[in-house]
Amino acid sequence: MSSSDSLTASLASLAVATVSHADTNSPVSWRDVLLADPSVPKSFELIKTLVYKPKTAKTATPVPVIVIARDETQTSSSALGKKLNLKELRLASEDLLAEFFGLDKNSLSLLALNKDTFSKVVTVIDASIASSSAMFAVRACSSSSTVFLSGKAIVEHLKSLETDDTRLEEVDFAALKTDGPVPKPAVKEKEDAKIDGAVQIAIGVKKEVDFSAWYQSVLLKADMLEYYSVSGCYILRPWSYSIWEEIQDWFNKKIKAMGVQNASFPMFVSAKVLEREKDHVEGFSPEVAWVTRAGSSDLEEPIAIRPTSETVMYPYYSKWIKSHRDLPLKLNLWNNVVRWEFKHPQPFLRTREYLWQEGHTAHLTKAEADKEVLEILELYRRVYEELLAVPMIKGVKSEKEKFAGALYTTTVEGFIPASGRGIQAGTSHCLGQNFSKPEMFNIVVEDPNDPTGQGKTYAWQNSWGLSTRTIGVMVMVHGDNQGLVLPPRVALVQVVIVPCGITAKSIEEDRNKINDACDELAKTLVDIGVRAKADLREGYTPGYKFNDWEQKGVPLRLEIGPNDLAKQQTLSVRRDTGAKAPVALADIKTTIPQLLDTIHNDMYAKALEEYNAHLKEVTNWEDFVPALDNKCVAVIPWCEREACEDDIKERSGRSAEPQDERAPSAGAKSLAIPFDQARWTPIEPGKTKCVGCGQDAKRWTMFGRSY
Amino acid sequence: MSSSDSLTASLASLAVATVSHADTNSPVSWRDVLLADPSVPKSFELIKTLVYKPKTAKTATPVPVIVIARDETQTSSSALGKKLNLKELRLASEDLLAEFFGLDKNSLSLLALNKDTFSKVVTVIDASIASSSAMFAVRACSSSSTVFLSGKAIVEHLKSLETDDTRLEEVDFAALKTDGPVPKPAVKEKEDAKIDGAVQIAIGVKKEVDFSAWYQSVLLKADMLEYYSVSGCYILRPWSYSIWEEIQDWFNKKIKAMGVQNASFPMFVSAKVLEREKDHVEGFSPEVAWVTRAGSSDLEEPIAIRPTSETVMYPYYSKWIKSHRDLPLKLNLWNNVVRWEFKHPQPFLRTREYLWQEGHTAHLTKAEADKEVLEILELYRRVYEELLAVPMIKGVKSEKEKFAGALYTTTVEGFIPASGRGIQAGTSHCLGQNFSKPEMFNIVVEDPNDPTGQGKTYAWQNSWGLSTRTIGVMVMVHGDNQGLVLPPRVALVQVVIVPCGITAKSIEEDRNKINDACDELAKTLVDIGVRAKADLREGYTPGYKFNDWEQKGVPLRLEIGPNDLAKQQTLSVRRDTGAKAPVALADIKTTIPQLLDTIHNDMYAKALEEYNAHLKEVTNWEDFVPALDNKCVAVIPWCEREACEDDIKERSGRSAEPQDERAPSAGAKSLAIPFDQARWTPIEPGKTKCVGCGQDAKRWTMFGRSY
Repeated sequence: MSSSDSLTASLASLAVATVSHADTNSPVSWRDVLLADPSVPKSFELIKTLVYKPKTAKTATPVPVIVIARDETQTSSSALGKKLNLKELRLASEDLLAEFFGLDKNSLSLLALNKDTFSKVVTVIDASIASSSAMFAVRACSSSSTVFLSGKAIVEHLKSLETDDTRLEEVDFAALKTDGPVPKPAVKEKEDAKIDGAVQIAIGVKKEVDFSAWYQSVLLKADMLEYYSVSGCYILRPWSYSIWEEIQDWFNKKIKAMGVQNASFPMFVSAKVLEREKDHVEGFSPEVAWVTRAGSSDLEEPIAIRPTSETVMYPYYSKWIKSHRDLPLKLNLWNNVVRWEFKHPQPFLRTREYLWQEGHTAHLTKAEADKEVLEILELYRRVYEELLAVPMIKGVKSEKEKFAGALYTTTVEGFIPASGRGIQAGTSHCLGQNFSKPEMFNIVVEDPNDPTGQGKTYAWQNSWGLSTRTIGVMVMVHGDNQGLVLPPRVALVQVVIVPCGITAKSIEEDRNKINDACDELAKTLVDIGVRAKADLREGYTPGYKFNDWEQKGVPLRLEIGPNDLAKQQTLSVRRDTGAKAPVALADIKTTIPQLLDTIHNDMYAKALEEYNAHLKEVTNWEDFVPALDNKCVAVIPWCEREACEDDIKERSGRSAEPQDERAPSAGAKSLAIPFDQARWTPIEPGKTKCVGCGQDAKRWTMFGRSY
Repeated sequence: MSSSDSLTASLASLAVATVSHADTNSPVSWRDVLLADPSVPKSFELIKTLVYKPKTAKTATPVPVIVIARDETQTSSSALGKKLNLKELRLASEDLLAEFFGLDKNSLSLLALNKDTFSKVVTVIDASIASSSAMFAVRACSSSSTVFLSGKAIVEHLKSLETDDTRLEEVDFAALKTDGPVPKPAVKEKEDAKIDGAVQIAIGVKKEVDFSAWYQSVLLKADMLEYYSVSGCYILRPWSYSIWEEIQDWFNKKIKAMGVQNASFPMFVSAKVLEREKDHVEGFSPEVAWVTRAGSSDLEEPIAIRPTSETVMYPYYSKWIKSHRDLPLKLNLWNNVVRWEFKHPQPFLRTREYLWQEGHTAHLTKAEADKEVLEILELYRRVYEELLAVPMIKGVKSEKEKFAGALYTTTVEGFIPASGRGIQAGTSHCLGQNFSKPEMFNIVVEDPNDPTGQGKTYAWQNSWGLSTRTIGVMVMVHGDNQGLVLPPRVALVQVVIVPCGITAKSIEEDRNKINDACDELAKTLVDIGVRAKADLREGYTPGYKFNDWEQKGVPLRLEIGPNDLAKQQTLSVRRDTGAKAPVALADIKTTIPQLLDTIHNDMYAKALEEYNAHLKEVTNWEDFVPALDNKCVAVIPWCEREACEDDIKERSGRSAEPQDERAPSAGAKSLAIPFDQARWTPIEPGKTKCVGCGQDAKRWTMFGRSY
């Protein structure tokens, strides 16, 4: 577009920055890609450009209406039509956009307007833009380029295009709304999600209103995560990576006690080997990343990056396991894997590269394998409940949801109250002999229990994995509108000590006394193994520091001011409840560790109560979708047939509101068949019917929307 | 080749296995690819097929001589010619191979001979093949397919092609050698490298004779490593990975005390970002692996796998560092990186994927950065000397050898006595402001020391890395002809306790008494933090166990037999020296930890002595190459000019024997300019001349062949 190019040039002096980026086809992906680019302004709002076509006589040339608004502004077409006195405004077709501007909807912006086109359209601008101090991101007539402009520059530019006949229309959409039809709640609520006065360092968005934006904001503001220039990949900053290190330490000790050893296997796997197990590879092949070139040479054969390591490892299990004396073989890897998902990525929960551990064991008997599957699952439960204070329900996956190639899959299943979605939090699979049989990897030994001495037996195998998803679940469950809330056992800083009551007028001696007391308190705590830190930064008020550490989720704050010092005490403030209580400095070595344990227990109890409150026993299909819409997990008597599961997913998805096609599914899938069936009314064989299909029910099964 | 195909078919019944593999164009790569394939027989020898052309009258049709021999057999063409009464046997050209067999030299084998061709050539077989019990790997008329045959099958097959006129010639090359010209020492020595009677579980090759085969054998037999189906990638088994875990634990504690925090960054980097720093990317681009496809979709832009993370991380350093208060920023990653080297890979030392840590820090001043560079280098020295008992020399790299994009590179430089090569063992770089300057990543803060308050300053950056190369160096330095020798501080098993003096005739009670005593001793040691293990395996003799654990390098063996028990003592046997001494069980808690420390110190002292003995002060060029050929590092007064370094490399390479083109260079490069110059004769400025070029020398510099 040479015309828009020249216009862009005229705007160049007003632009704060222009950046190129990956192609983006939705506001969500556009925002993500900008957030991931360190060269863009730190805070910005997206500008949307909508084109409407009014109803006109067939013979008349249509005059399109161009609406330029903040992405979050609700632009009701009916209210706008009424105001402009135009009939039946409809979003223009792609054809019309192409005809008028030579652009598609992901490239079009106000920059496409020039002296020529301006007079042929009606241009409407969101009145709040002109006066805003925000920086606005505007599509630079391309879905892969963005220009940053102030509100003032946008309006000045558009006004420069005005002619005597055609003026820019400023419309106060906020005022319009009250006249128009009832706005859709979702959009209205997102407006309300902004927390008043929550500028600078606060989270700025309410968890209960715009959960997705809240999550993103918490992660960024707490220095947990940084968006990265390759979509779906994220940077784990020390504040989150240290949590992973805590989990690693704990889990390593437990599995080593079980005789598991750590090892390292290559990240690459040849196509030939990857494709050895058919069910398995079918489960992964759509997401496999392929290396095809090294330096400037094409590889003879493309090489896959592991999506998981079964096929990487088992050819060597076959080599190493020659006698029943070589069993059990128990190896674990801490590594990175790649699954190139095309669904919308979500930090920690769905990422293209992620960190995890994967254990791979081989046993002589099924009984041994079965036993280990449950031992590992119990460790996963303990990681969540005892380290992260997040409750789990243990169970087995349905046939449809089990791991590709497994005999059966057990799971710890979590729940995110804010979204009402279940989340698969860790899985321990029994692979049976699927991978060891002769046509697969042929992991075989002589059977020591065979009386003839001639018998052979194929190894019974397990694999089990826990990933950095743990961290995302923890954030979603515990965080609040002040930011992150860290469970004490994994917090990099468990206790922060803030000097108070010092002002600019305080004399040096008093200041030193307080600071020294904070420092000493920190040392005392560090000596008994508490991760404590005194925040003695100069030039920051206590209030700023409180906010800063609250946002970062530090479980406990201790304040020391002159009065505290006089009384030989410190004021403790809990992050989870906000509860304040003085603590005698003399008892600190016992009270603080106890208090941290109390915080852990209270956080767990609160989360458990929420989980339980959202487990809805459903016995009629009519109550099923309403339960989901009520942000609950529906626990139903179920027949355990795959066709029924497909049907439930389809029917529950259909009745839900439409979603972004790449968003998590609105249909419910089975989450787990809980081991503990006793918490629900006993199922009577042949009498209790499946809620999905009316056939005989087998067990209570959790169904829900999920991540 | 249909003729050879049908012949292959006739041999099929005799073949033990036939495997397909990557294309290989040398015996080394052929052997590697077979070792990496778990489906091939566990031990095998390569068969080479050589074709010679005798001098014949121009009008006569040449009769090629086909020699079929073990890869290691020396097949002297002159001795063979004398024996066959043929003049001037020369290796045949590729053209002749193509003409006769339709194959190139990497595909040709005895399988190409058939009833038709056999009678047109002279076929000679190494007489030792027929009687050998070894399994032989034979090219299946393809460089990417191998058939395994017994010696008997090979000879039978060839004999089946005999006609009345044309017989198979069996030649005893070992006997031939004594008649012929003096054999090249290298080949002669390789024959001798096999250790007599060293079958089954021993190393089988002498370190001082065939170092490369010894290294491979030690790693495999000690369960340190497994070859993998993707060339240049290896499996680190628990026996080696646990060493890496020990290094991680130690190093993490030290850097965390320095204020360094661990984090995780993505493994992918876009081409645009990777190419930001020109010098840097030039250093790495020939080795970068590119992902171009995900599932069945081509990516819009290829994405690189990090060869190192400077360009991955620094865009975000620029974002995070906004004030001098944000400095220093000190992050460390434990991750995997990929450098797709085309040189011959070597386990641990040169691999396409490897594990390492990479630290990346940013500082306000050069002084701070300089200080940290040396602090980290000191930690690297300590990892080698205090954990691995491997001596290092600290120094700075020449301009030519410094890290791509660095201001300067410091190094701990090790030495492998068996090969006489230096090895870069860990590097700590000051990047200066090369990456922080505005045209690169623009990592800038206001200068707090600028009196105007207007000044800006660019961050001073360091990066430093230590890899699993550590493990390879340790194996090469300490290992011996019994196998691995592990330094005690990193050994997964430090002490193994073996019950002795029990025979098949021993009564149950005596057996139990001894076993219980071993078990108890192990528990006592574990309680005081010694990694001890009682080897109570049934069905193995003590001798077998001794050999097994020696091969795996366990630093200390304790034997308990009936007599020991009576005397309340145990016999200690050191792996490093073989020294035996009784130890009273009563004192075990003090003597064993002391003995482990002594072993560490003695191993270090021995290695240091060897390093020092091979540091040769050279002041005349005439002594330079002889020093290298004597497996020494030449320490010379040097001018420090890059042109001189190039010249030294070229001249020293030229005078050396020719090597496999992918082998480490025979030319000497500068290894390090040691910090400690005082150990050599003082250089007199303007008077002491450079050994390379005769210009004024600056400092003593280590030159050597290297890895």
